Amino acid sequence: MRDVAIIGVGMNHWGELWNSSHRQIWTEAALLAVADAGVDRVDAMYVGCMSGGLFVGQEHLGAMLAEQLGMGPIPGTRVESACASGGLAFRQAWMSVASGVHDIVLASGVEKMTDLDGGAATFALSTAADQEYEGYQGLTFPALYAMMARAHMEKYGTTRDQLSAVAAKNHGHGSANPKAQFPHAVTIEQVNNSVLVADPLRILDCSPITDGAAAVILVPLDMAKKLKKPLIRVAASAHATDTIALHDRADITWLESTAVAAASAYKQAGIGPKDLSFCEVHDCFTIAEIMVTEALGLAERGKGGPLVASGATKIGGKMPVNPSGGLKSKGHPVGATGIAQLCEATTQLRGDAGPRQIAKAKWALTQNMGGTGASTLIHILERA
Amino acid sequence: MRDVAIIGVGMNHWGELWNSSHRQIWTEAALLAVADAGVDRVDAMYVGCMSGGLFVGQEHLGAMLAEQLGMGPIPGTRVESACASGGLAFRQAWMSVASGVHDIVLASGVEKMTDLDGGAATFALSTAADQEYEGYQGLTFPALYAMMARAHMEKYGTTRDQLSAVAAKNHGHGSANPKAQFPHAVTIEQVNNSVLVADPLRILDCSPITDGAAAVILVPLDMAKKLKKPLIRVAASAHATDTIALHDRADITWLESTAVAAASAYKQAGIGPKDLSFCEVHDCFTIAEIMVTEALGLAERGKGGPLVASGATKIGGKMPVNPSGGLKSKGHPVGATGIAQLCEATTQLRGDAGPRQIAKAKWALTQNMGGTGASTLIHILERA
Repeated sequence: MRDVAIIGVGMNHWGELWNSSHRQIWTEAALLAVADAGVDRVDAMYVGCMSGGLFVGQEHLGAMLAEQLGMGPIPGTRVESACASGGLAFRQAWMSVASGVHDIVLASGVEKMTDLDGGAATFALSTAADQEYEGYQGLTFPALYAMMARAHMEKYGTTRDQLSAVAAKNHGHGSANPKAQFPHAVTIEQVNNSVLVADPLRILDCSPITDGAAAVILVPLDMAKKLKKPLIRVAASAHATDTIALHDRADITWLESTAVAAASAYKQAGIGPKDLSFCEVHDCFTIAEIMVTEALGLAERGKGGPLVASGATKIGGKMPVNPSGGLKSKGHPVGATGIAQLCEATTQLRGDAGPRQIAKAKWALTQNMGGTGASTLIHILERA
Repeated sequence: MRDVAIIGVGMNHWGELWNSSHRQIWTEAALLAVADAGVDRVDAMYVGCMSGGLFVGQEHLGAMLAEQLGMGPIPGTRVESACASGGLAFRQAWMSVASGVHDIVLASGVEKMTDLDGGAATFALSTAADQEYEGYQGLTFPALYAMMARAHMEKYGTTRDQLSAVAAKNHGHGSANPKAQFPHAVTIEQVNNSVLVADPLRILDCSPITDGAAAVILVPLDMAKKLKKPLIRVAASAHATDTIALHDRADITWLESTAVAAASAYKQAGIGPKDLSFCEVHDCFTIAEIMVTEALGLAERGKGGPLVASGATKIGGKMPVNPSGGLKSKGHPVGATGIAQLCEATTQLRGDAGPRQIAKAKWALTQNMGGTGASTLIHILERA
């Protein structure tokens, strides 16, 4: 297999984009990535989108968006793994370059979620869970993560303030991200006192509903060298699954798919968690970031709450997590999130992150998950 | 890249499967393929499904079905390219084996379409077209293909009897397929006199709404040799796109994505259309098969009608097309169709097709398309 590098990134300003259509949002991000890479063509494109059908009544996105980019008849492939669709698009694009099938490949993600009312959007999102055993019984995603949070609090003593510390940290980071949907700093007290959604989760524990897209351009590492681009090498790509329904798990406080994918990714990259410069992780709810840091080996099992409360995961701390602001502040257009993580990782490794730059960034890990962790995609990038 | 072989196929009896759920239908086909291959594990799985969201309210199929197969935490990837989702799943699975990322990979497709009423199913299918410029203006798929048929009749003199000859041939073939939804022979007169759907297309010009699944197992060719399996080699994999909307095409009587993919596939395999032993093609409507035979180079441009009328594409003819019965007779669970074509091709190349066996089958081509041909997947298999 060939070594693969990222040579272009693009992301539009996320938010409630009522004046832009699904395809316009995607095209804006894709063209930014193409311009950043400085290429005059792409040989294939991948797009992650969770539910074009339910959110905007449009499937067949691979063909539609290849045309929209003006690049037909290139292969256009849409992949889906719920909220991990973006990470999955990156993995398939990486595979297509590593294998030698394609040379210049666009990996992208998009979701337009705000055209639906709240109930319809909640139903669309519930299709990431087990519809027969969870969704049709009335379980929404805030409810599922609330159960995970409550169990984690009971088992490990995780506190309300520790959950809030995740939101406060990520909104603090996001306040330096001009593309974030909610670039507003919040305090632990504000999170603690925000309206209850599903006990113990409050509105400021939850990532928002967002319209947005992101894209990156992948090429063989040798081509990146010839183009004299900063060498951002894909050092690992890992993908693992877990039971789709929470009730089938031995322990709902543990993200097994993330732990399995992380073990594979560290092995591929030849590094361990202590070697990482920073991580971008899937904080769809505050409890999710706490559990993810444990599954990645950044904290001992059960100690994700104290980790965030210690300040170690802030920019400037020992192991910054979500310098972009994460899903919490940046927004969470579900199909785009995994690609946006890779945009942030690349931008940081290039040293282009401005006021939120992490000093001497060398190794970055991105962790993107679907549902309550039924699927996880992990990538490790290296500034070579 | 490594050479890849198919060592297992599985398909359930297609039809209106009201007593089976989406995941049950898929699992039945997947287990048949695993048993046929004689393997005790798969390392990754791909599933093509057009709209789990709109048809059954379930996305996140990669994770759910990997678990359903009892194979979690393996990577489970869902791909979508409308009615070409199955062919796309095969291509991504092939890439994952050819690249060396995975060894034993299940490629599958599934759709459960009959849980919706006709109007809702028609809407779900319309998301394969350009929703903003076609679907919301009231264009359904029978209407889109009716325009293509009318233009073909006006431009090339294609006749009502030639359209009907496609249906009569394919239902004749399908009458020898025990897994077909409608294994009933029909005459040209019966097609001519069936109820009008969208002029000039009648009900017997249209493929049905179907529940069904299909699966195949892929391994490196070297592993197939060690397992002493019949050597069914993947000689070519090609994927191309065209405009999603009909109005953007220079000529709506021509399937450019199929022509582009076919040229690539023939080049990869080192053969031409005359070398093929038979084809399985995407006859979602009778006019589609006529246009596909032209784009594949089996007939001159505009001469697909006379080709089918001549009897050359019947089993026993010079170039059999759709020995399985095609989408017309076998059924068309949209995400599964592309994989079922590969099941039939493998079964024929193994010499296991019983009463519908094609003599001395050596090279097979499968052509699977999405929408009105906005995407096409072509694979060529060789009995090595």
